[in-house]
Amino acid sequence: MSDTDDTETAFMEATYCALCEYGYADVTMQDIADQTDRSKASLHYHFDGKDDLFQRFLTYLHEDFRKRTGDPPGETPAERLIALLQTVLSTPDEGEDVQFTTAFLEIKAQAPYNEGLRDRLRRIDEDLVAAVADLVAAGVDAGEFPAETDPDEVASFVSTYLHGTWTRSVAAGCDVDAMRERLVEYVAEDLLAADASVRTDLVAPDGTATDAVEQRQKSPDDTSEEVAQ
Amino acid sequence: MSDTDDTETAFMEATYCALCEYGYADVTMQDIADQTDRSKASLHYHFDGKDDLFQRFLTYLHEDFRKRTGDPPGETPAERLIALLQTVLSTPDEGEDVQFTTAFLEIKAQAPYNEGLRDRLRRIDEDLVAAVADLVAAGVDAGEFPAETDPDEVASFVSTYLHGTWTRSVAAGCDVDAMRERLVEYVAEDLLAADASVRTDLVAPDGTATDAVEQRQKSPDDTSEEVAQ
Repeated sequence: MSDTDDTETAFMEATYCALCEYGYADVTMQDIADQTDRSKASLHYHFDGKDDLFQRFLTYLHEDFRKRTGDPPGETPAERLIALLQTVLSTPDEGEDVQFTTAFLEIKAQAPYNEGLRDRLRRIDEDLVAAVADLVAAGVDAGEFPAETDPDEVASFVSTYLHGTWTRSVAAGCDVDAMRERLVEYVAEDLLAADASVRTDLVAPDGTATDAVEQRQKSPDDTSEEVAQ
Repeated sequence: MSDTDDTETAFMEATYCALCEYGYADVTMQDIADQTDRSKASLHYHFDGKDDLFQRFLTYLHEDFRKRTGDPPGETPAERLIALLQTVLSTPDEGEDVQFTTAFLEIKAQAPYNEGLRDRLRRIDEDLVAAVADLVAAGVDAGEFPAETDPDEVASFVSTYLHGTWTRSVAAGCDVDAMRERLVEYVAEDLLAADASVRTDLVAPDGTATDAVEQRQKSPDDTSEEVAQ
């Protein structure tokens, strides 16, 4: 990683922290520089103002989101879909996560006035919809979902629900865990073919893989560690 | 209606217009007074600052929402549920409706910092959830939904989706009509009992009752007009 990459990453992490502390409307370039050991001049050298910085910040979040959701655990498409949704909707801790969800809602409300933010938010949404649609399509091929299931329609439905989860938790204080559970039931009960079954215990409420994944990956005669050495 | 009621209603309508024009963060008491033939002093006489005004504004929106959704058309609970959702998610016109949805998202993002707004947003959500749960419960009793359907869980799921529709339309520019259609399909296909059927044509995309409702209400031997006189 180059020095420039290091600096940019430091500024992105600082943006996250400052956003949580001050909110989108109130946060300043100075607040962000103050979260690092770099100067405000250095921040302005790397970013052409708050707009540019926040557009890059959304790109950074998008890449992070892709990394976290790129390879959900599970042996079938339906299992992987449920694991993906559980990862995306992990239980927020009461501090930064809740503050971040709130600040991110502020950013969403800016989209109609800011083409750069809007384009990036749309790309994140499209990416999520495509990931869900791919898993649903694979599930249809595998006979886990009925043949008449429309992957794109399901994916759009799920994405809308995810946006709703974050908004409703901020606006009406509703419990993310309960809303995640409803979404898992929707996939595992309403969508799933009548003769199919699916594991829903591969991702813990905090978004990490559970022991069940480890047990699956590590069979008694597993020699992969030795091979790797 | 008293003069005070008239004035308050005028200020509520002015708040709606000013909010659409300036957004929540930027709108001032002066902007709101400017939308009426009353003075800023009169506005301050009626409302104890922007916080108080916006709390009352949410109560005003809540009452308006109740009026619009209190008696959805339909002859069965499932029909009335679908009509209710179609009314709530009517097609936004490209001007004020879109601006209002955006401004309302800004208000939702303020909820964690403002107890008064948060309480009112929670009440609106609870009211919607209760209305949906009542119709689902009535639909279960009528055999339109399977006996194992949990009205509260369905109602929470639907409310989350509704929040998502508004957020996703603002943040990612997604089409409200398409998202409404998915929700109607969820109720009419995923939720409905296998042997039940339901009309989904009683509310037009703009949220008004369709000709189908009038045809139903006016049978050839209808004498209700004469009776009413």
